[in-house]
Amino acid sequence: MGGDQLPSWRETAAKQSIMEFVADVTNPDSADFITEAQRIAVFDNDGTLWTELPIYAQLAFALNRAAELGQASTLEDLHAGGMPALAELVRLTHADITTDEFQDVCRQWLASARHPRFGRPYPAMVYQPMLELLGLLDHSGFSCWIFSGGGTDFMRAFASEVYGLPPHRVIGSVGATKFRVGPGGPELVKDTAIQVINDGPQKPSSIHTHIGQRPVVAAGNTDGDLAMLQWTAASPQRTLQLVIHHTDSEREYAYDHDPVLGGGTERILTAATEHKWTVIDMAVDWSAIHP
Amino acid sequence: MGGDQLPSWRETAAKQSIMEFVADVTNPDSADFITEAQRIAVFDNDGTLWTELPIYAQLAFALNRAAELGQASTLEDLHAGGMPALAELVRLTHADITTDEFQDVCRQWLASARHPRFGRPYPAMVYQPMLELLGLLDHSGFSCWIFSGGGTDFMRAFASEVYGLPPHRVIGSVGATKFRVGPGGPELVKDTAIQVINDGPQKPSSIHTHIGQRPVVAAGNTDGDLAMLQWTAASPQRTLQLVIHHTDSEREYAYDHDPVLGGGTERILTAATEHKWTVIDMAVDWSAIHP
Repeated sequence: MGGDQLPSWRETAAKQSIMEFVADVTNPDSADFITEAQRIAVFDNDGTLWTELPIYAQLAFALNRAAELGQASTLEDLHAGGMPALAELVRLTHADITTDEFQDVCRQWLASARHPRFGRPYPAMVYQPMLELLGLLDHSGFSCWIFSGGGTDFMRAFASEVYGLPPHRVIGSVGATKFRVGPGGPELVKDTAIQVINDGPQKPSSIHTHIGQRPVVAAGNTDGDLAMLQWTAASPQRTLQLVIHHTDSEREYAYDHDPVLGGGTERILTAATEHKWTVIDMAVDWSAIHP
Repeated sequence: MGGDQLPSWRETAAKQSIMEFVADVTNPDSADFITEAQRIAVFDNDGTLWTELPIYAQLAFALNRAAELGQASTLEDLHAGGMPALAELVRLTHADITTDEFQDVCRQWLASARHPRFGRPYPAMVYQPMLELLGLLDHSGFSCWIFSGGGTDFMRAFASEVYGLPPHRVIGSVGATKFRVGPGGPELVKDTAIQVINDGPQKPSSIHTHIGQRPVVAAGNTDGDLAMLQWTAASPQRTLQLVIHHTDSEREYAYDHDPVLGGGTERILTAATEHKWTVIDMAVDWSAIHP
């Protein structure tokens, strides 16, 4: 494969660390060579592969859908009501619906909704440099997976098209589903019970359940991704950890705390310094943010 | 690919239904053509891909391991103690151990234990005709997955080698794991909590979580597999359902009720008749059972 495979990455140490890692582990003559079956890369989604501010796309979807269903709610209501209010919003907008119907509802929303600042559909809020990285890894024999705190069903409504990943490699939080044979035949109905909240130390557990192998590449942007990066770093093989640092208030956002759910970056940035992980300074390392 | 791809299948209607299905859905000129991305096949494990009598391999493992740990238990104890006794056996033999250590323990057992009737290692108790079917499907662009009531970690200790499936396509019941940074670095510790018991109506739910697509081939042998076959049959595409019927007391076992856990076959065989699913009569349709 000729040419620059990461054209939206500036020629900085971050890009160099990625290119060197890929060249090394895919070189059969290298002591660090990794077989294709073991080339597994895991990515957080919100804030790592696409813009998560001013609020998660899935939260914007839930607020829109609640209004459509005649039970409008606002961010202020959620802050005032805490977790019970959020759980009620999820129940209202994500449950008592078949999996097929929910996918349709998500796709309609994704096609029509616009990001409040950029005025573009949410799928256009992906990071162009990360799309290039997914492509580079895919072409280099890696299997890329998403492990996000977002809902699996919501993400799968766009991730295959946007990221080029098959649905089984898109894993998030999971609500229970109930199998029933309805009048139209067998169907799965989304339930109110939450089975897995896929954040923090749950991410390595979910990786174990869904992949059953330890990844050699992990990328995240908040403390909720720290365990996933630690787990990957403990592999006996050569590994690569990437921390996306939001430093670009002009082209995107500059922040170290998620203003909605309060996730921070202090622990993951400290770990990155200690273990020499690759911190990506979006303002410096990326020549473009969105496609 | 020339030659007979299912040499251990006799020339009966069962083999014919498989060969016709595969030829049809992989033929680009057929109205039933299915793209490779949608060619997904799901298999139960115990009793469908390998011998499950006189007791599940995993139960034999647990009884052996309990004895090794100085807390011997018997089948009679389990029958007398019911679910609490079984849960205690699982806790004793499957928890408070890291995932890496557990894999080692399983592999050692699988290499040394022998089936009480056939005197061979459990991995040799796989069904040769089903290995050939997995191979045929793989060569025809299908992705084969296992959805079993057995434990995911236990199955993954042998399934890649025996069935040629990557670990992420081997899904069973799941115990919780806890991530911790121990003295030797990050590790996952198997916990006593059961997250998912992958049987009955849970199988379609697990398929949804782990694959996110509806399969077009499903194979099982007991009523615990019925929902999985129903779910597959409701696909808008051409589908294939296989019910393995244990009819061969000479070469394997003839039974319609699992004598340990009590699972039956009445509902799945009735559904097979009603929907014209393919019932595989092991004594008639297979010229060989084990490799």
